[in-house]
Amino acid sequence: MTELAAAGAALAGEAARYAGMGWMRGTSGNLSVVLGRDPLRLAVTASGLDKGELTAEDVVVVDGEGAAVSGGVPSAEAGLHARIAAVAGAGAVVHVHALAPVLAAQRWPDGVPLRDLEMLKGFGRAAHDDLVTVPVIPNGQDMRVLGDAFERGFRADTPALIVARHGIYVWGGDLRQARHRLECLEWLLRFVLETRIDGVGRDVR
Amino acid sequence: MTELAAAGAALAGEAARYAGMGWMRGTSGNLSVVLGRDPLRLAVTASGLDKGELTAEDVVVVDGEGAAVSGGVPSAEAGLHARIAAVAGAGAVVHVHALAPVLAAQRWPDGVPLRDLEMLKGFGRAAHDDLVTVPVIPNGQDMRVLGDAFERGFRADTPALIVARHGIYVWGGDLRQARHRLECLEWLLRFVLETRIDGVGRDVR
Amino acid sequence: MTELAAAGAALAGEAARYAGMGWMRGTSGNLSVVLGRDPLRLAVTASGLDKGELTAEDVVVVDGEGAAVSGGVPSAEAGLHARIAAVAGAGAVVHVHALAPVLAAQRWPDGVPLRDLEMLKGFGRAAHDDLVTVPVIPNGQDMRVLGDAFERGFRADTPALIVARHGIYVWGGDLRQARHRLECLEWLLRFVLETRIDGVGRDVR
Amino acid sequence: MTELAAAGAALAGEAARYAGMGWMRGTSGNLSVVLGRDPLRLAVTASGLDKGELTAEDVVVVDGEGAAVSGGVPSAEAGLHARIAAVAGAGAVVHVHALAPVLAAQRWPDGVPLRDLEMLKGFGRAAHDDLVTVPVIPNGQDMRVLGDAFERGFRADTPALIVARHGIYVWGGDLRQARHRLECLEWLLRFVLETRIDGVGRDVR
Repeated sequence: MTELAAAGAALAGEAARYAGMGWMRGTSGNLSVVLGRDPLRLAVTASGLDKGELTAEDVVVVDGEGAAVSGGVPSAEAGLHARIAAVAGAGAVVHVHALAPVLAAQRWPDGVPLRDLEMLKGFGRAAHDDLVTVPVIPNGQDMRVLGDAFERGFRADTPALIVARHGIYVWGGDLRQARHRLECLEWLLRFVLETRIDGVGRDVR
Repeated sequence: MTELAAAGAALAGEAARYAGMGWMRGTSGNLSVVLGRDPLRLAVTASGLDKGELTAEDVVVVDGEGAAVSGGVPSAEAGLHARIAAVAGAGAVVHVHALAPVLAAQRWPDGVPLRDLEMLKGFGRAAHDDLVTVPVIPNGQDMRVLGDAFERGFRADTPALIVARHGIYVWGGDLRQARHRLECLEWLLRFVLETRIDGVGRDVR
Repeated sequence: MTELAAAGAALAGEAARYAGMGWMRGTSGNLSVVLGRDPLRLAVTASGLDKGELTAEDVVVVDGEGAAVSGGVPSAEAGLHARIAAVAGAGAVVHVHALAPVLAAQRWPDGVPLRDLEMLKGFGRAAHDDLVTVPVIPNGQDMRVLGDAFERGFRADTPALIVARHGIYVWGGDLRQARHRLECLEWLLRFVLETRIDGVGRDVR
Repeated sequence: MTELAAAGAALAGEAARYAGMGWMRGTSGNLSVVLGRDPLRLAVTASGLDKGELTAEDVVVVDGEGAAVSGGVPSAEAGLHARIAAVAGAGAVVHVHALAPVLAAQRWPDGVPLRDLEMLKGFGRAAHDDLVTVPVIPNGQDMRVLGDAFERGFRADTPALIVARHGIYVWGGDLRQARHRLECLEWLLRFVLETRIDGVGRDVR
């Protein structure tokens, strides 16, 4: 199996898992893994397909701008995947449409503050005395604009980005680390949505 | 396999999927695909059966009025399926009892306004500056009355209809497209139910 | 396979399904089918076992008082199963600990009024102009006391009973009909809990 | 199969079940069974692994302080597992990150009062006239501090401990009993979170 086929199989498996969780409804969302750094090359899930039924072939190679360098049509969002991989040095980027992040962005449009929660360790941060603010940027269709907004708010210790009224990006060294971070962050966002008391002590009830 | 058996197998598969999601509780809901246009013929799931346990044989052919033209008993709602297929030119119509659409119809009885949400692309609309109003009609048992109400509110760019205190119809070119649209719309309805701020800026808290 | 083994297999299958839905947590809940009417004999799931892991042997035959007439230990609640089978003429009785019925009983301790909802057809009632009141009785450990309370509130057209701060009983001609009714009723209860406007027009917000 | 391999297989099976319920997101949570009492030895799930993908080998033997006595790296939390096993005489301890217990600890930081609910029988208590207070302790990273707080609030009839802003510990004679108690307690906590009327009659709405 080629490296691309292996990446495609891994992406298909993760996509089916997220689809089963309701986080990749219809054809929404996309996942990527970095194939090479110099120049930057990513394997990205192909556009327009049911995310619960991908095969190892449903993958496109894109460059640092998100443009296809193999056959197939990548998602327009591949450009933001590439930007995140370049800026954050991530090995894998997952973009899903879980509901909780989008609800949280609606309530905390300037970033979602989280603090003093054990689950933050699963996001790569400390369980105590470590204020984590998950960045929120406005939605848009121009990936350069979104990429610029991402980069302005980027902190190396915060591997996530919520796009308001859209979805969430989470990244890590590989697809599994990205998934673990996403699973823990989604739990944290549901917690703060339910309690409505955020990490800087505001009561947003 | 005949065309009808293929349609029956496809309908059974989709029904099992929706039953697993809790959207076809008991024997509720029904699905259809268009078999021919002139005259209009639809394959509709048979009435009164467990929607998680259908086989390829549990299908009835109906005409443009929803009357059976093969053996078997179609749902009374087959008449509305046929009307939608005729008016909207749909190739497949799905009718399920997901909870969110019925809750949304209760809060927005004159139609559910959605706007500026990325997930609207999965419903065939734009993510920005495109007000989508999902039509709501009162429930009833006479499919001609429901069909007339549907037709009065029909817009070619809005492939869904909520029947208040009942359930939702979504359609598309085929069963998969109808499912993708339904999955995305259900997400959108849960979003607006949770935030309680609708697409025309009303706060219905 | 004997009639009892067939009943045991059917009960185990249904119990696993309910356990998967989170409605038979731990060893909670019990299911029964009528084996004979004169004298009344029921096959009831055995007590104290994990309801997701029952086998066809995990079944006890009880009489009209709920006392064992075969080996094995029936649930104390077998007495209420037998009473319901006798009074309602049911062929199968299911008792589960779904959350929505218990929450509804808390809000409507004198019975949960439902009306003008299509899903009522799946409970054996009409979708319009037919007020359905799901009876609620206080919890207790004496099945004769519970049975008397059940019988005082019994109506032949309402095949369900909520025991407050405990769980729900639903019955039908066979296990499948009981399940369909339960699935539809649970949906209806979630609907009325969410909208908080009940079937007699009270706003319990 | 050695006793340790059997314990590892049992732990892996339970962990996969909890991961499927969303209660062991990412690598969070840990499970243990007692291998011997004199001296105390526990088999604990290994640290840092995906809890849905454990094998029978992903297990570490620890002593009464939670220190490894076999190869592998136990979770730091193994120290609290050992303390609970010693103080409560438990044969199995499960620690998961279900959301409801953490939400309940936020609302009832001095302990969650439950009373007059049938499901309390599944937690080993009485359904009537038996006030159960689930202890809540503050989160921390020093297992001796947490263990001391646990021991101060310990009652032999209450086999659970919530660590605020973190997760829940539940124990029993074996993994199955611990699971049954956890499943029932999680249901009870969701009930009291929804009704917001607690077991001492306070309305915390």
